[in-house]
Amino acid sequence: MRQVCMRCGKEREGLELRCKKCGGPFKVDVEDISFSKNLRDNFPYIKRWISLGEWNTPMIKSNYVYFKLDFLNPTGSYKDRGSVTLISYLAEKGIKQISEDSSGNAGASIAAYGAAAGMRVRIFVPSTARGNKLKQIESYGAEVVKVEGSRENVAKAAENSSYYYASHVLQPQFRDGIRSLAYEIVRDLGWMAPDNVFLPTSAGTLLLGVFEGFKHMFNQGVISKIPRLISVQTEQVMPLCSKVKGFNYIPPEKVTSIADALVSTNPFLLPEMEEVIRKYGDCVVVNDDEILDSWKELARKGILVEYSSATVYSAYKKAKTEGVNVLVLTGSGLKVL
Amino acid sequence: MRQVCMRCGKEREGLELRCKKCGGPFKVDVEDISFSKNLRDNFPYIKRWISLGEWNTPMIKSNYVYFKLDFLNPTGSYKDRGSVTLISYLAEKGIKQISEDSSGNAGASIAAYGAAAGMRVRIFVPSTARGNKLKQIESYGAEVVKVEGSRENVAKAAENSSYYYASHVLQPQFRDGIRSLAYEIVRDLGWMAPDNVFLPTSAGTLLLGVFEGFKHMFNQGVISKIPRLISVQTEQVMPLCSKVKGFNYIPPEKVTSIADALVSTNPFLLPEMEEVIRKYGDCVVVNDDEILDSWKELARKGILVEYSSATVYSAYKKAKTEGVNVLVLTGSGLKVL
Repeated sequence: MRQVCMRCGKEREGLELRCKKCGGPFKVDVEDISFSKNLRDNFPYIKRWISLGEWNTPMIKSNYVYFKLDFLNPTGSYKDRGSVTLISYLAEKGIKQISEDSSGNAGASIAAYGAAAGMRVRIFVPSTARGNKLKQIESYGAEVVKVEGSRENVAKAAENSSYYYASHVLQPQFRDGIRSLAYEIVRDLGWMAPDNVFLPTSAGTLLLGVFEGFKHMFNQGVISKIPRLISVQTEQVMPLCSKVKGFNYIPPEKVTSIADALVSTNPFLLPEMEEVIRKYGDCVVVNDDEILDSWKELARKGILVEYSSATVYSAYKKAKTEGVNVLVLTGSGLKVL
Repeated sequence: MRQVCMRCGKEREGLELRCKKCGGPFKVDVEDISFSKNLRDNFPYIKRWISLGEWNTPMIKSNYVYFKLDFLNPTGSYKDRGSVTLISYLAEKGIKQISEDSSGNAGASIAAYGAAAGMRVRIFVPSTARGNKLKQIESYGAEVVKVEGSRENVAKAAENSSYYYASHVLQPQFRDGIRSLAYEIVRDLGWMAPDNVFLPTSAGTLLLGVFEGFKHMFNQGVISKIPRLISVQTEQVMPLCSKVKGFNYIPPEKVTSIADALVSTNPFLLPEMEEVIRKYGDCVVVNDDEILDSWKELARKGILVEYSSATVYSAYKKAKTEGVNVLVLTGSGLKVL
């Protein structure tokens, strides 16, 4: 399966993380894949799936809006869609030791799938990391390494580790796995594209992964349009929305918003995200009061998510979009009790 | 849909909790339901499903054993299978205020589905109740009432509340919803019955509910045998295993086992459980060391459950059963981090 640089088009040679020519990120080139309703067939580069029961999460309707309950993936977040493809791919390549930097859902997901693959997993986290997600990472048997200093320091430590850096941001097979979410949304609607899809947006893997899925289906004639993709960010961390909407934005030194999974203050994939949103979508900013209200409202419907996931409900209520709206609920509320 | 006393056969008249003649528990009489592979059709008494995305949990295979990941139901436990049928049924009957006694998975599940139905929910818990499950119950907006004294006191308080007592133990539509789990196991195996099904067993709703599902499929010719149902209990709380195996058992005053969801020291449904196990199954007792080992082993495979659910893996390893083995993993590990 061809993998190409998203910036200059150069082909990936091996397992390098960035384009050797321009330093850009890679993506899996899916243009030549004939779309199959047998969804796993759309990932022909995976021969043996190291599965923990991911995919096929419920989509429920409540008051004219669809909630895709992607937090019901095995480790409690949509990230499992990326981990299953990345880890299965790396296992086939003979990788036995991986590192990752995340004290959150990505770290937990990589730790679980790495464990399922029999890999040694080393997760680098900020020295200040606490809470259930960290305990979850440790439960899967991963080695947790605390790193002093900035978020960039943590990433650098993971990259410079002797283990192979299974970055959920840079590895193209991680982002590529998120295509499955777009396929399922369309399938759940009876093979029809929704009008709007609301996505919490931080590092950009969800937005860009889902976009590739919709684009693939559109190019293959499965759907007649690409839905509007509505990225949701917080007032505190809005690198994408500030660009697209012209808001003033100074990256915070420390993220204190209750939406503690939306922490990418200056994401590497920002140029790619900006291009997609300018062409196919919109960006909505929400604040902590709005998030907390939405979180409560969802819980009072029996839907318990993490705060970062409740952002999409706030955004939906503000945006007043018409047609068929799908809100992706990304992370389990059980992790933040 | 006829509901009958499991002890004397008398029909249920209305919404009473126990048989007016003998005090026994009711069950939904499913004999006349033609089995349908469209699984919801096997619950014809539900006209409008108040759904949160329950059912269709993954079943994965690892080293010759099948794990049914029922903790991936919306509130993190298999109890949602019972709540969806009970709450949908009660909503149709016009019930708007419900009570329940449980500081655990049943309380959380009833609170969530009650919220989804727009009901007022009052959950009675022991005054000593703590932890994530209690926080989960509160998150769904339920009123939590703490009761001093024994577990029986808590149940009495729930029953004597002015709200209708939606007991997960006594309400036949709760137990009946668990039939869906048996259907799914058989469907997941390509419409074949497994040889053995391992079930953590406390109040008996899981065992008796699953049994009714397998019996229904057997009577309808869908499967050629009823699988052996293997109940798993802890050394500390083994009212069923002690009866069946002749072990000495003194109900503990306080449950201190790490399997803190297996707390029914003297379950009301014990006679019914005993009959099923003597005829169709077996009972296996495990201790805390074994449970902790199994919990770790599962987590190291990427499967994070609560301790009470890990019991089935300990039992499976001890029982050395042959053929197709299904282990039901009932509760999410995210609740016990």
